[in-house]
Amino acid sequence: MKRLAALVLFLFLSACAGLEPRGTGDLGIIIERATGSVLVVDTTKRAILGRIEGLGDLSHASMVFSRDQRYAYIFGRDGGLSKVDLLERRIAARIVQAGNSIGGAIGPKGDWVAAANYEPGGVKFFDAASLAQLAEIPALVDGKASKVIGIAEAPGNRLVFSLYDAGEIWLADMTDVKTPWVRKFKQAGQLPYDGLITYDGRHYLAGLFGEDGLALLDLWNLEAGTKKIMPGYGKGQEPLPVYKMPHLRGWSQAGDEMFLPAIGRHEVLVVDRRGWKEAARIPVAGQPVFVIARPDGRQVWVNFALPNNGLIQVIDVPTRQIVKTLKPGKAILHLEFASKGTEVWVSARDDDQVIALDTETFAELARIPAQKPSGIFFTSRAHRLGL
Amino acid sequence: MKRLAALVLFLFLSACAGLEPRGTGDLGIIIERATGSVLVVDTTKRAILGRIEGLGDLSHASMVFSRDQRYAYIFGRDGGLSKVDLLERRIAARIVQAGNSIGGAIGPKGDWVAAANYEPGGVKFFDAASLAQLAEIPALVDGKASKVIGIAEAPGNRLVFSLYDAGEIWLADMTDVKTPWVRKFKQAGQLPYDGLITYDGRHYLAGLFGEDGLALLDLWNLEAGTKKIMPGYGKGQEPLPVYKMPHLRGWSQAGDEMFLPAIGRHEVLVVDRRGWKEAARIPVAGQPVFVIARPDGRQVWVNFALPNNGLIQVIDVPTRQIVKTLKPGKAILHLEFASKGTEVWVSARDDDQVIALDTETFAELARIPAQKPSGIFFTSRAHRLGL
Repeated sequence: MKRLAALVLFLFLSACAGLEPRGTGDLGIIIERATGSVLVVDTTKRAILGRIEGLGDLSHASMVFSRDQRYAYIFGRDGGLSKVDLLERRIAARIVQAGNSIGGAIGPKGDWVAAANYEPGGVKFFDAASLAQLAEIPALVDGKASKVIGIAEAPGNRLVFSLYDAGEIWLADMTDVKTPWVRKFKQAGQLPYDGLITYDGRHYLAGLFGEDGLALLDLWNLEAGTKKIMPGYGKGQEPLPVYKMPHLRGWSQAGDEMFLPAIGRHEVLVVDRRGWKEAARIPVAGQPVFVIARPDGRQVWVNFALPNNGLIQVIDVPTRQIVKTLKPGKAILHLEFASKGTEVWVSARDDDQVIALDTETFAELARIPAQKPSGIFFTSRAHRLGL
Repeated sequence: MKRLAALVLFLFLSACAGLEPRGTGDLGIIIERATGSVLVVDTTKRAILGRIEGLGDLSHASMVFSRDQRYAYIFGRDGGLSKVDLLERRIAARIVQAGNSIGGAIGPKGDWVAAANYEPGGVKFFDAASLAQLAEIPALVDGKASKVIGIAEAPGNRLVFSLYDAGEIWLADMTDVKTPWVRKFKQAGQLPYDGLITYDGRHYLAGLFGEDGLALLDLWNLEAGTKKIMPGYGKGQEPLPVYKMPHLRGWSQAGDEMFLPAIGRHEVLVVDRRGWKEAARIPVAGQPVFVIARPDGRQVWVNFALPNNGLIQVIDVPTRQIVKTLKPGKAILHLEFASKGTEVWVSARDDDQVIALDTETFAELARIPAQKPSGIFFTSRAHRLGL
């Protein structure tokens, strides 16, 4: 009897230990691209809480967080969509929803998630609780399916995305998620390869691979349609070979200026948001991949494509000068800032480490072991439009 | 023995039930000003999770959240500083640190909290874990203690605040919290009565009660010192009696424009942030108290002092027109937006209710009973500078 009581006690202690209450505002996910796994991390203690495996092909994974910051929805390259529980460190639900997927979004109310698909193209919508499919928008133009990229949620329960093959930008009103209402902006630009929405949710920008420039949609003035900005920003110059397409989610906003990676060029472009004209070009150490502003906009951090992918450069925004060049590790794939900008975590894939750096002193704060780490995502994203 | 085992089982089941895991990203606090209590709410279900009592005088309470979004630090008017646990719904620590306090801040790294005091004046710093006092900055100017108001954390582990009596703005570098390094900006303006930091943490603004205008400090250019902006915005007009001082934390930023309450006047002032000049005045239904932009900056919501404190007006930002006047309840004291702006919660003190409204349709979504509710605070604030 005593043994039984002890066993009961042990079992309940164990159960309770697993359920120890904790906040979810300081959690993060590190994608381990080669092993189809993620690490759940505590960003305050800079410590690993656990690993979740079985997530499929994460070679180009992205993710969004639930509004309670308990769950992450991970979009795998293989079309897998996994809902993982950061508190219990397990897969809460998982489906394979397409053949090839490039990213996703979550509705501003948190009730649906959307996946942007390369194959078979289009956008699918899922219930955020169960992952049951709710709706689909096939990206058909003249009978041809288009790859969908640059998906972002917008104020007013809307979703905006680009059609790579068709060169269009579509805006979906998801007030009734089961019957999306779609407005199409044709001839937005040739081969949009990624897109972003500005922090305030007003402007959507798509980068164009098929022509020199960007496509802009002002969500406060839809009647004006899309327009081209920065036409010919590389015009008259010999294009460089592109070693890695820059990521536009990595575009940055600092005050009135946007900082963005020039495709193929060793330059960061500065665009004045007031007139959407080029304000400056900042020479950098390689082809920029992510160009990310510290949350206060005072610094912009840049990583690079091969062969300069071991470097990070830090731009001081008011002077537009590079104030620091760092070499924290091999194959720096991604950067993520703490929500108030005090530190940044960078993934060094070929060192199997994530490195935390102080953004004021540039001192190294911690090294966290991870298997071929790529994307780093902190739960504070849950409260930011377009992330 | 069986009874004992049953008791053990019961106790552990109870403990476990209380510890059911949940995210903290969608929690909120409603201040019940008359009873010294707060409600912990689930903003997704729009439901009360529990009440925490024994928090002293909350008649002008404000609060900040820990970066893990598990704890709230509540600054009571009586100098009480309470750390409450949103998950376990209890007081985790409580001190009375001054005779009269007006607000506080939390360090960007989350390691300290600061209280701004009227009586005896100055700022005190406390360990965020234990509430042990770490440091104090007495606000002494020419031997006289000054009330401290408008306290806000700034990038680079700094804190900025205003001295009401002395008319100064001080910037404290808290890199070593035990030995703050203070830079003083003298003659900033007469009787600063509240202050705020812009969303990007670059500009600090203090409202002045002793003169017509505002004081501005550019944290990117400290050498320039403070300057006066909007001088004489009420000049040449008969001042109206002021029924309630507007709250500057309620100042709003929408794109390049700041929307702020004119003291005593039935107007919202629009300031162009590029040159800090007046861009427009929008006539409203009373003396504005809080003027708060929806997170995407498309709308600005306004509540009012007596006798118009049952009204809310909604300004459409691009047209600067009032698009809606609402009368949701009696004595509307505060408004808080969901982090992506889909809904807003408003406290109707004299109806003992908090009302959730859809910001697109203005439909009422829920009424939540609360005892004389005033401030409403959602945990998403944890990741915003100056909130």
